[in-house]
Amino acid sequence: MAITNRIENFHMEVNQAFLDEAEALAPALITTEIFPAGVVEIAPSGQDWTSRTVSQGFDRSRPLGRGDSVCLDFGDHWVGYVSFALTPVGSPPDAPACLRLRLGEIPYELTVGKADYQGEISSSWIQEELIHVDVLPARVRLPRRYAFRYLEITVVDTSPKYQVVVSDVVCAAVTSADRGKLPPLNTGDPELAALDRVSLKTMEDCMQSVFEDGPKRDRRLWLGDLRLQAQTNYVTFQNNDLVKRCLYLFAALTQNEGRVGACLFLEPCPQVDDTALFDYALFFVSTLHDYYAATGDRKTLEELFPTAERQLELALRELDGRGIVTDKDSWWCFLDWGEGLNKQAGAQAILIYALKQGAVMAEWLGVSERAAVLWDAAGRAARAALDCLWDEERGFFVSGAQRQVSWASQVWFALAKVLAPEDNARLLERLLEQKPGIPLVTPYAYHHLVEALVENGLSEQAVSAMKGYWGGMLQEGADTFWELYDPNDPLASPYGSRAVNSFCHAWSSTPAYFIRRYWNP
Amino acid sequence: MAITNRIENFHMEVNQAFLDEAEALAPALITTEIFPAGVVEIAPSGQDWTSRTVSQGFDRSRPLGRGDSVCLDFGDHWVGYVSFALTPVGSPPDAPACLRLRLGEIPYELTVGKADYQGEISSSWIQEELIHVDVLPARVRLPRRYAFRYLEITVVDTSPKYQVVVSDVVCAAVTSADRGKLPPLNTGDPELAALDRVSLKTMEDCMQSVFEDGPKRDRRLWLGDLRLQAQTNYVTFQNNDLVKRCLYLFAALTQNEGRVGACLFLEPCPQVDDTALFDYALFFVSTLHDYYAATGDRKTLEELFPTAERQLELALRELDGRGIVTDKDSWWCFLDWGEGLNKQAGAQAILIYALKQGAVMAEWLGVSERAAVLWDAAGRAARAALDCLWDEERGFFVSGAQRQVSWASQVWFALAKVLAPEDNARLLERLLEQKPGIPLVTPYAYHHLVEALVENGLSEQAVSAMKGYWGGMLQEGADTFWELYDPNDPLASPYGSRAVNSFCHAWSSTPAYFIRRYWNP
Repeated sequence: MAITNRIENFHMEVNQAFLDEAEALAPALITTEIFPAGVVEIAPSGQDWTSRTVSQGFDRSRPLGRGDSVCLDFGDHWVGYVSFALTPVGSPPDAPACLRLRLGEIPYELTVGKADYQGEISSSWIQEELIHVDVLPARVRLPRRYAFRYLEITVVDTSPKYQVVVSDVVCAAVTSADRGKLPPLNTGDPELAALDRVSLKTMEDCMQSVFEDGPKRDRRLWLGDLRLQAQTNYVTFQNNDLVKRCLYLFAALTQNEGRVGACLFLEPCPQVDDTALFDYALFFVSTLHDYYAATGDRKTLEELFPTAERQLELALRELDGRGIVTDKDSWWCFLDWGEGLNKQAGAQAILIYALKQGAVMAEWLGVSERAAVLWDAAGRAARAALDCLWDEERGFFVSGAQRQVSWASQVWFALAKVLAPEDNARLLERLLEQKPGIPLVTPYAYHHLVEALVENGLSEQAVSAMKGYWGGMLQEGADTFWELYDPNDPLASPYGSRAVNSFCHAWSSTPAYFIRRYWNP
Repeated sequence: MAITNRIENFHMEVNQAFLDEAEALAPALITTEIFPAGVVEIAPSGQDWTSRTVSQGFDRSRPLGRGDSVCLDFGDHWVGYVSFALTPVGSPPDAPACLRLRLGEIPYELTVGKADYQGEISSSWIQEELIHVDVLPARVRLPRRYAFRYLEITVVDTSPKYQVVVSDVVCAAVTSADRGKLPPLNTGDPELAALDRVSLKTMEDCMQSVFEDGPKRDRRLWLGDLRLQAQTNYVTFQNNDLVKRCLYLFAALTQNEGRVGACLFLEPCPQVDDTALFDYALFFVSTLHDYYAATGDRKTLEELFPTAERQLELALRELDGRGIVTDKDSWWCFLDWGEGLNKQAGAQAILIYALKQGAVMAEWLGVSERAAVLWDAAGRAARAALDCLWDEERGFFVSGAQRQVSWASQVWFALAKVLAPEDNARLLERLLEQKPGIPLVTPYAYHHLVEALVENGLSEQAVSAMKGYWGGMLQEGADTFWELYDPNDPLASPYGSRAVNSFCHAWSSTPAYFIRRYWNP
């Protein structure tokens, strides 16, 4: 995720004890050497681009001179550090070798150079390097970390007297996910098994020093992604200390007034971004709730509950006289990337959802008077929603001054369980049938649809929605699940260029969560 | 110099004792921190480009975002390693910073990108880098060595949320020349003083681990350049061990049959190139002769004389039945870059020149029978030249089957002193008056003209030629003397693009030699 939304007079508040706790939990990364599986050509295919295998395996290239190129396929998506041998052929090298390197998670990325890029966010996310090798032969070690399956090496120039051979190409792939911890998958459904496999790869490549949102971009810790990664983690890699580390980081480094930020940077030292999002701050509550439910780690719950409660207090400040979250023109709440999506109703539902989880945590901690306050706030917010946001005639929740009907609003009210249980299911059935208003556009939003369906007894529809949406990415050849997938527009991007979309994205890794939590016999 | 001319079945012969001797003489480099003198704009000026000072001094740039650029002027030509601080301004950096760096010895180079380059030799000589800085703030240290006065830093992208400030820019300039060793210059002529100053800077920047031909390109040890650098060195920086090191390197690493190569590479380990040039091999003789004359280092003369003698033997093999060096179609002898220049007469003269120096060395060593053989060979080669190459009617030496009259042929015969002393002077006067045939095009060839004039008593014409030619470069704003200078064509290049010409070139640094040897009262 990447968008601009800077809070005013931003400053960072630091809880050093929490930060120390988080740093003590920094994981050791597991490194695996990965070799190219073959050589490919990238060619147009319909509206998209695809790779065609030219040869299986890769030992060494033919000699390459000015303008020559080789495109290597590492067989799957990896996150890591690339190195290769560059050996001169011909006379002693009488000029440096100049190489252009492009790395892509999918073939399309290799077709867009930095020079062609027209998108809104930084072109620096395009994985393209220009390097000079002054002394040959050499082992070229690229210092940066890349997320990729394809590596294109183009010789910009050698000299008329020599060429170069590329050999011994290796990617030192890194992750903090340990496959030895994976519980077995027992499904007999090959579609589910395939969805699980690609989910795990997505999770694995996003699990680094923290749960990153995407290892290509933004390579950092976003709360919205963390919540879903943590849920998936509990039923897959079970690196619960990594969740704990991330919770302590968010609690250690807050914005003005103790507000949990939307994301954190890890380098050069941990710091909170100046982006605040209403829903993401509340997901601190939710992630802590889920963490305790999965681990029973009471000490963490005790230490971090005040941070969670603070987010609820700050959110309640945003209620208007009717008890409804105040709508804003800015990018104040995420929900989804849908064009024109109004966030008010979704925000209200998430507030209710988080208040209930806060109340449950208060009960776990035995602070019943706090629990009562939170239950009461949840009840009032729910009643206000029914009074002001529920459109009885249309049978949907509406959002904003224009009384917008969107999928996201319905999904989140179904998750917040504001209606009676059977009415939640009817709401979702009506949604699937009528397909009203602003649709869902990200796997993140589809996750909440599937979760709402499962939680409200519509398992069949849940499986069908999951297979349809994530299965579509599989059919497009995804090795890892994408940040954004619009079945009707392969080139869709919220950034003005698909080249900077992330094609291994944490919030898209949840089929494994659903399959293993609900459909793993 | 850079051209392709590969000897057949090339192999390298190694004299390890000589190599050890050379390596023991590797100089310590002197490092000096150089800071930008100001900010400039590069703009067209007639057929060329020039810099216009925007501000004196440079502390830090204004914040730079996508597409912004700053061009720093380091006030003079330097060879070294650049580093700078890159500090973000705005929100915490949410994307890498991507920078394009261009470095130029003269303004023109900053106007030609790698993508635009159409020359014959490698575009990798264009000093242009694309770098990504993932973690900010950062001290960016460019690992490569550059030769430059101008450094242009362009921000390809940061992100919409932050910009960067460039500050604390420094060049760690390196040289093995010690200005403390410079004898004083006593000339009262400001033109000569200016030529001396720029010559010294050129020498200094070419004096590194060896005498490089040019620190931008080719950054290596060519014999033709070494001979002139050594001559200049004896009257300027007096780093005689550096000359000795280079002589031992050439003698240690020879081509097939003990032939001294035209140039050596130093990295990854010392090795001789596969280029052989008739004249350059003979300049080993000449350089050793000059070294002993300057230093009286008898041990080196004794050890390296056999290598020198071997070059004379190999050259004598090339004589035809008439006793004239066999002409060839290939690039077998350098002399100059003049278009269509035939090398036969120049090669004959250089052979005579070197045979005489060989004979003198044999006398120094007291091996009189060897001296007699060499004097005899020189005499026979000179008589053959007078018989076959001297055109009495035209009053010039002719070269090749087409009996070409060129400046280079006359200059070298004047240096070889084949005619009677007064006839040499007349030959040169005739040359300056009639301006026949193929002209001289490089400072290297102009050096030999000036040397021939001085040696034959035409001092006034020598000074005038030197002031006219090198002074022209001064008028063009040269900080160091150029590899190539054609007063009538600012864009001239032997490589198809002026962007890869060297603008600090060893063979152009000899005004200091002339001034200090002949005109320093």
